[in-house]
Amino acid sequence: MRILVTNDDGIFSEGIYQLAKAFMSIGEVIVVAPNKEQSATGHSITLHRPLRVSKVKFFDTPIEAHAIDGTPVDCVKVAVEAILKDRRPDLVVSGINNGPNLGTDVIYSGTVSAAVEAAILEIPSIAVSMASTKIDTFQDAAEFTCRITKSIHQLTRSKVGIININYPTCRKESISGVKVTTLGVRRYENSLIERKDPRGDSYYWISGKAMELQQSEDSDVIAVRNNYISITPIHFDLTHFKDYDDLKKIKFEA
Amino acid sequence: MRILVTNDDGIFSEGIYQLAKAFMSIGEVIVVAPNKEQSATGHSITLHRPLRVSKVKFFDTPIEAHAIDGTPVDCVKVAVEAILKDRRPDLVVSGINNGPNLGTDVIYSGTVSAAVEAAILEIPSIAVSMASTKIDTFQDAAEFTCRITKSIHQLTRSKVGIININYPTCRKESISGVKVTTLGVRRYENSLIERKDPRGDSYYWISGKAMELQQSEDSDVIAVRNNYISITPIHFDLTHFKDYDDLKKIKFEA
Repeated sequence: MRILVTNDDGIFSEGIYQLAKAFMSIGEVIVVAPNKEQSATGHSITLHRPLRVSKVKFFDTPIEAHAIDGTPVDCVKVAVEAILKDRRPDLVVSGINNGPNLGTDVIYSGTVSAAVEAAILEIPSIAVSMASTKIDTFQDAAEFTCRITKSIHQLTRSKVGIININYPTCRKESISGVKVTTLGVRRYENSLIERKDPRGDSYYWISGKAMELQQSEDSDVIAVRNNYISITPIHFDLTHFKDYDDLKKIKFEA
Repeated sequence: MRILVTNDDGIFSEGIYQLAKAFMSIGEVIVVAPNKEQSATGHSITLHRPLRVSKVKFFDTPIEAHAIDGTPVDCVKVAVEAILKDRRPDLVVSGINNGPNLGTDVIYSGTVSAAVEAAILEIPSIAVSMASTKIDTFQDAAEFTCRITKSIHQLTRSKVGIININYPTCRKESISGVKVTTLGVRRYENSLIERKDPRGDSYYWISGKAMELQQSEDSDVIAVRNNYISITPIHFDLTHFKDYDDLKKIKFEA
């Protein structure tokens, strides 16, 4: 089994190190990741300038690793279509992200978008995030992900599944269990902070605190809050089929 | 009715000019858009630096317009949470994009992501794209969008619908009609081009030609190919419900 590992925090972060190391036990690992942090880049790709690939030494491991001056989605594209052109990966694993990727927020996430890009290229994928990095449980999360990988991809109905894992903020012994979840709702209050520069002109920071919202009991947000490891299967078909049926009843004129 | 107009080609492009001008006939229009091209930025947001807002004169119109040094999603956030804080828009319209946004590609699109962000903020939205800009039919596409706006949002079941419109490559009189569609499949061949710099080192351009793939007859790709105006309702719930049912049957151990 050949596993491509990527992330959005940059190739020299703790999360990707632990993840790549754990997956060495089940296959050949190749790391292709951004050369610096690329959080919240969503499904952005780089079209207006070319991309550079640099081979790098990956910590204390013998793992083949390449850093790219682009987004996580760029990394998956360049890895699959160039670096691994004759060595197509069987699986793409993205993370471990420094912070949660829950509910509505997955759409902004570079970590999750890398996994989605893999699925677009018809390769099964997993995104992994830590709800909090206040305590260092990257290794536990990496080993859990590695353990469940095979069973998940053999049993899902869709040939090319995408799995989004969020690991709760607690030590292994305090984890309540594992929950298969749906994406919850995440919205932010005070999501824009206005500041003044020395000339008195305004500028704005995107920020904000996650609001306490009513959530489905099945949601990833609730699972992680209750110290469960959350596993959400996701897809990239954005068609709204209910609205589709409704709109078909309208007579439109060109 | 208050309408926020944005795009990803930048505030001084032909598409947004025609769109904003057309919507003046049905309500108060405010333009908030990127100060330069931001194509393929997907749902990227800017977290590592603050955003600047500059009031600009919008062509030959009296429309209130603001340029932002960020992505289309940044523009929607700053518009709704700051510029229009006490003047919440009833509708967000994004485009007219210079090029199609069909099928799988909508996930990379800044134009469509701006519309998705509006829906996350609970405002109905429309994204509009031109399949080709070889012939100048921006005005026709803008007027069509304006005409169907009201009927669409009154009749859809979801309170906060997102509509993705693609206008075909032909003059008004050659249009076959209007089709409500699902998102088709778009994949590219030779999607990475390798070049050498003067030192003999490689660099890569993301590029590629859309492949001829089997498409559903309901798809946006087929509709536009047959000179129909395509209308696709979209959403942002990425939960894969079929896989969810399957995964729930597995017993996972933490």
